[in-house]
Amino acid sequence: MLSFASDYTEGAHPKVLEHLLKRNLVTLPGYGLDPDTEAAKAKIRAEIGRDDLQICFLTGGTQTNRIAVSSMLRSYEGVVCADTGHVAVHESGAIEHSGHKVLALPHRDGKLEAATLAAFMDAYLADATCEHMVRPGMVYISHPTELGTLYTKAELTALSDTCRRYGLPLYLDGARLGYGLMSPASDMDIRDIAALTDLFYIGGTKVGALCGEALVFTRGNMPPHFMAIIKQQGALLAKTRVVSQQFDALFTDGLYWDIGRHAIREAMRLKEMFLKKGCALYADSPTNQQFFVMTNARIERLRKDVAFETWARLDEDRAAVRFVTSWATTDEQIDALEKLL
Amino acid sequence: MLSFASDYTEGAHPKVLEHLLKRNLVTLPGYGLDPDTEAAKAKIRAEIGRDDLQICFLTGGTQTNRIAVSSMLRSYEGVVCADTGHVAVHESGAIEHSGHKVLALPHRDGKLEAATLAAFMDAYLADATCEHMVRPGMVYISHPTELGTLYTKAELTALSDTCRRYGLPLYLDGARLGYGLMSPASDMDIRDIAALTDLFYIGGTKVGALCGEALVFTRGNMPPHFMAIIKQQGALLAKTRVVSQQFDALFTDGLYWDIGRHAIREAMRLKEMFLKKGCALYADSPTNQQFFVMTNARIERLRKDVAFETWARLDEDRAAVRFVTSWATTDEQIDALEKLL
Amino acid sequence: MLSFASDYTEGAHPKVLEHLLKRNLVTLPGYGLDPDTEAAKAKIRAEIGRDDLQICFLTGGTQTNRIAVSSMLRSYEGVVCADTGHVAVHESGAIEHSGHKVLALPHRDGKLEAATLAAFMDAYLADATCEHMVRPGMVYISHPTELGTLYTKAELTALSDTCRRYGLPLYLDGARLGYGLMSPASDMDIRDIAALTDLFYIGGTKVGALCGEALVFTRGNMPPHFMAIIKQQGALLAKTRVVSQQFDALFTDGLYWDIGRHAIREAMRLKEMFLKKGCALYADSPTNQQFFVMTNARIERLRKDVAFETWARLDEDRAAVRFVTSWATTDEQIDALEKLL
Amino acid sequence: MLSFASDYTEGAHPKVLEHLLKRNLVTLPGYGLDPDTEAAKAKIRAEIGRDDLQICFLTGGTQTNRIAVSSMLRSYEGVVCADTGHVAVHESGAIEHSGHKVLALPHRDGKLEAATLAAFMDAYLADATCEHMVRPGMVYISHPTELGTLYTKAELTALSDTCRRYGLPLYLDGARLGYGLMSPASDMDIRDIAALTDLFYIGGTKVGALCGEALVFTRGNMPPHFMAIIKQQGALLAKTRVVSQQFDALFTDGLYWDIGRHAIREAMRLKEMFLKKGCALYADSPTNQQFFVMTNARIERLRKDVAFETWARLDEDRAAVRFVTSWATTDEQIDALEKLL
Repeated sequence: MLSFASDYTEGAHPKVLEHLLKRNLVTLPGYGLDPDTEAAKAKIRAEIGRDDLQICFLTGGTQTNRIAVSSMLRSYEGVVCADTGHVAVHESGAIEHSGHKVLALPHRDGKLEAATLAAFMDAYLADATCEHMVRPGMVYISHPTELGTLYTKAELTALSDTCRRYGLPLYLDGARLGYGLMSPASDMDIRDIAALTDLFYIGGTKVGALCGEALVFTRGNMPPHFMAIIKQQGALLAKTRVVSQQFDALFTDGLYWDIGRHAIREAMRLKEMFLKKGCALYADSPTNQQFFVMTNARIERLRKDVAFETWARLDEDRAAVRFVTSWATTDEQIDALEKLL
Repeated sequence: MLSFASDYTEGAHPKVLEHLLKRNLVTLPGYGLDPDTEAAKAKIRAEIGRDDLQICFLTGGTQTNRIAVSSMLRSYEGVVCADTGHVAVHESGAIEHSGHKVLALPHRDGKLEAATLAAFMDAYLADATCEHMVRPGMVYISHPTELGTLYTKAELTALSDTCRRYGLPLYLDGARLGYGLMSPASDMDIRDIAALTDLFYIGGTKVGALCGEALVFTRGNMPPHFMAIIKQQGALLAKTRVVSQQFDALFTDGLYWDIGRHAIREAMRLKEMFLKKGCALYADSPTNQQFFVMTNARIERLRKDVAFETWARLDEDRAAVRFVTSWATTDEQIDALEKLL
Repeated sequence: MLSFASDYTEGAHPKVLEHLLKRNLVTLPGYGLDPDTEAAKAKIRAEIGRDDLQICFLTGGTQTNRIAVSSMLRSYEGVVCADTGHVAVHESGAIEHSGHKVLALPHRDGKLEAATLAAFMDAYLADATCEHMVRPGMVYISHPTELGTLYTKAELTALSDTCRRYGLPLYLDGARLGYGLMSPASDMDIRDIAALTDLFYIGGTKVGALCGEALVFTRGNMPPHFMAIIKQQGALLAKTRVVSQQFDALFTDGLYWDIGRHAIREAMRLKEMFLKKGCALYADSPTNQQFFVMTNARIERLRKDVAFETWARLDEDRAAVRFVTSWATTDEQIDALEKLL
Repeated sequence: MLSFASDYTEGAHPKVLEHLLKRNLVTLPGYGLDPDTEAAKAKIRAEIGRDDLQICFLTGGTQTNRIAVSSMLRSYEGVVCADTGHVAVHESGAIEHSGHKVLALPHRDGKLEAATLAAFMDAYLADATCEHMVRPGMVYISHPTELGTLYTKAELTALSDTCRRYGLPLYLDGARLGYGLMSPASDMDIRDIAALTDLFYIGGTKVGALCGEALVFTRGNMPPHFMAIIKQQGALLAKTRVVSQQFDALFTDGLYWDIGRHAIREAMRLKEMFLKKGCALYADSPTNQQFFVMTNARIERLRKDVAFETWARLDEDRAAVRFVTSWATTDEQIDALEKLL
């Protein structure tokens, strides 16, 4: 059975596990106060070329989003995002459970546009009843988006400028950041991401780690007593090393970027192949998630041999489907898929 | 200065204050365990003709909505409503602050239609990722709606049936219930409301009381230890009598309905008058809130002598405005307004 | 039936109701933005002799405590108090429901001593694991306390100094402030209270109002967007006038203090009477709550004609009981009680 | 540098890592819906001899406690525990952050006694104001306790019976369960634990895993939609396999118990050694945490070569210290420590 169901269906990239194994018996203090965690932070800071970044290692995307958002907002504030945003749709209400409204705005190709945000803010501020409404307190975007698309540097700069104009911290969910930045379509690197956002996370779970995300505060803006914040939300690992050592490996010798490049190359082969077979694109993604339009009949036939997700029903006969590549995808798998199409 | 700004701009209907005064020096136990509170409940039960109703007196609409919703839902559930719903827009995120998502669906004339709800539920249940989404746990509607409109009995029956089919309790926000049920356009009475909903509240604040709403559970479904629930949310008055005595007065000799009828009559005069003067309707409301389209120039001119709300900007030149009548509106005020138009 | 059960068993002081009546038909904007609310604030500011005080009117004590505490604390902070404190015992977990721990320390006569607080803070700060513990974020006291006792000016000054040394805002629950400050045992006035605390509330519900408390911020420290905070907790009255007009009356011609003096005089008569009858004091209270030790037999006998609270069981035969006076207590009631003893 | 600081200072037991490595490249669905997670549950069920157990894998102790407690309680309920309990002291207020009070009662050797619980419940139920107090909703104990002590079967049976009498689910925090059950002082096995509690967790993090705990519901009492509950609290791993595969290894060929036995043997050697050297016991622990009384001078001297925790200051000259063994402790380390004493 072939699987293109997601980028979290295998364990860790072998080099990541290797590093865990190598450091396994070293005695280290707990709760992120260990030298290995410091080493991992140092590698990320070096990669971005800034030693002022504040970094925290967490175990998963929803956890990271929940903590980032709830620790940045006051009780009466909400987080603005595209209505396709992960926090708006697929986190079982984690943001609301933390007490905050998700203010979902119309997206364009999965992206929140600067103009959409500005119009929303202007309307909010002009509303005489605005004290009775949820105050927009920060902005959430994902990059790549849930549709695999990427902000251009111009788009992200415009959004970042708009955020600053309205006093809104900009938070970027980089669950698949490695895949995004290694796309040929990307005109940004991780330094741009750090420069244009107030906080963002570097996704590990979907990019070669067993588990783990690195949350980065870029303006000295990590809330005070952040350790207590993550502890009380149940997110502080006694052995934080488990996550930080994996990030050490991912940011050694460019492994994180190698993983990204590999998955993108496989994704581009896959895309080409589907187009050649006459499948229409549902979204034009330059990253490791690919979306196609398929007839129900073809979907049913293909499911016998391949795992993949149905993204959305389009009409009685057709649906949008998603195929995802990762560090673990092989040329052989793409070849095998080709034969099945 | 004339005011049609809202239905909460005066104190209480004189008969309500009179009753407070009459009972003022009677010694009563606190926290709603007093005979006056029992008497008020008995009057409401008699009005509805059912002695199985569980009733609780609270001080305001947002408080009542917050408590009703958060006490009925499990942590992972959200409340479905029209996107014009008060809980979705004008409660400073009270529902989200209590941990729950507001699942806002497209409205029609401020109403949530049974078909809209059914389509939403079907899509939710068919979604393979539904465990990662907020589970719809109840339905909120307002009657009259925020646009002054009314559900017909057929519409409410269809919605109620749909709710039951999907296992969703139906909650009706009756902040202006008295005005709604006394509209000539209404084909329901309060017995229908109790029969077709699982819980609802009878609005006092906007219908003649100083403050207060009566939350009614219609299926023996008041959550256990409800006194502790309202206490911990800061909503339990030591002197619950303050609210219950007002409801006693409102439900004595049909005062609540007299108030409703009076305001509706004034509203209909007002509506006719505006139409005669060539103002277009923004929404066709049969209740005490009336919405018109006006030019900015006319709005500015009128504001010098009359208080009213700008509801929404329509374009560069025009806006929707709201005029509200209440138990306190007089024929003289309507006459005076006519002269100003 | 005589009642000394509590100070909230009647409605409002007649002058308070009279003022409500007088202002009843005046048209005013909602949500505390009305001139009557401004007038009430002005009277309180004048009483305290400071025009920089920020004031907010709420409906009850638990609501006020919940909002004061939760709006001043960060998520990982708790509120320190005596273990007899109302927030620790009798609010159905309202503080915890808002997300914060109540850090209860041993009391002395219902009071939190400066030395107890200092020792607790020193131990906390010296603890190597303090990041894993709840951070003390503010201090709560009640004055009079739950046992009717009073802080001396020296004691409150010491506590206030200790709070400042550790960076802890000091919050005073003045549910019965009028009774406390009019006790002959009090060496403070309301100006001292404002000077020595960071925030406090002036109790209305138990001191002559139908309902309502005035929360006062003394250092320009009202959290921003406080209206949204109280709205989202369900505590914003559309007709805030209902509470503020009552405070206007209470702070006109010294009514609030007259009420206090009257109740204290009756309480002292009652205390003397009980002592003369050989009842031991359970707590030596100089305010309107009086605590005695009684045999169960006597309690049972008395209950036939008098309402009062059993405070605590002491042993198989005896219990502590509480008798409370208020603005509504009359000489005749005390006389009648005397005959029953 | 020797370390007896805690049982979480190394990575994973080699056999655990080995199993992760072996299963690393197997393609599996996410979110705990994979066969490897099923396999781990099956092994735990087999170990306990009951196929009706509901099991969920989480990443850490505080997370597990927070989720177990908040998912079992209604909003107005609190969790009862010994005042030494981890949830009461060392979780940065995670329980309160989830909305619930921790009702801490006096402990005996770190244990909550059945008689203490019964007396507390009787007093609560007899209190006329109990609706204004936090309702006890469940009981939390740790086994071994924070002081390394163990409940006897008779004690746990009494506590369990008391819980049932009052309708309180009993929850056991087994962060160090493997060490506890392998102590010669234990007269219970894991089947007894399952029989006498309503839910408990089997600790992985401190007993050989990189991270992870197995939460077990013993009465078919897992709250519905538990996946959504853990997702919204940020605790659902995309790759749940990371934890479940580790538990598979721990419950293969008795590894979990071997780890326990080994650490206990080393702890007993260590205890004997300290006693021989004249150190008094601070607590008489039969498990892998050992507590001694030491002079400050000796502590300071020892700290140059050994990592260990100061547990509590006793007086000016002496403190209680904690030494912890684990699966990773070697005979050589104990020998080396002996030389330093």
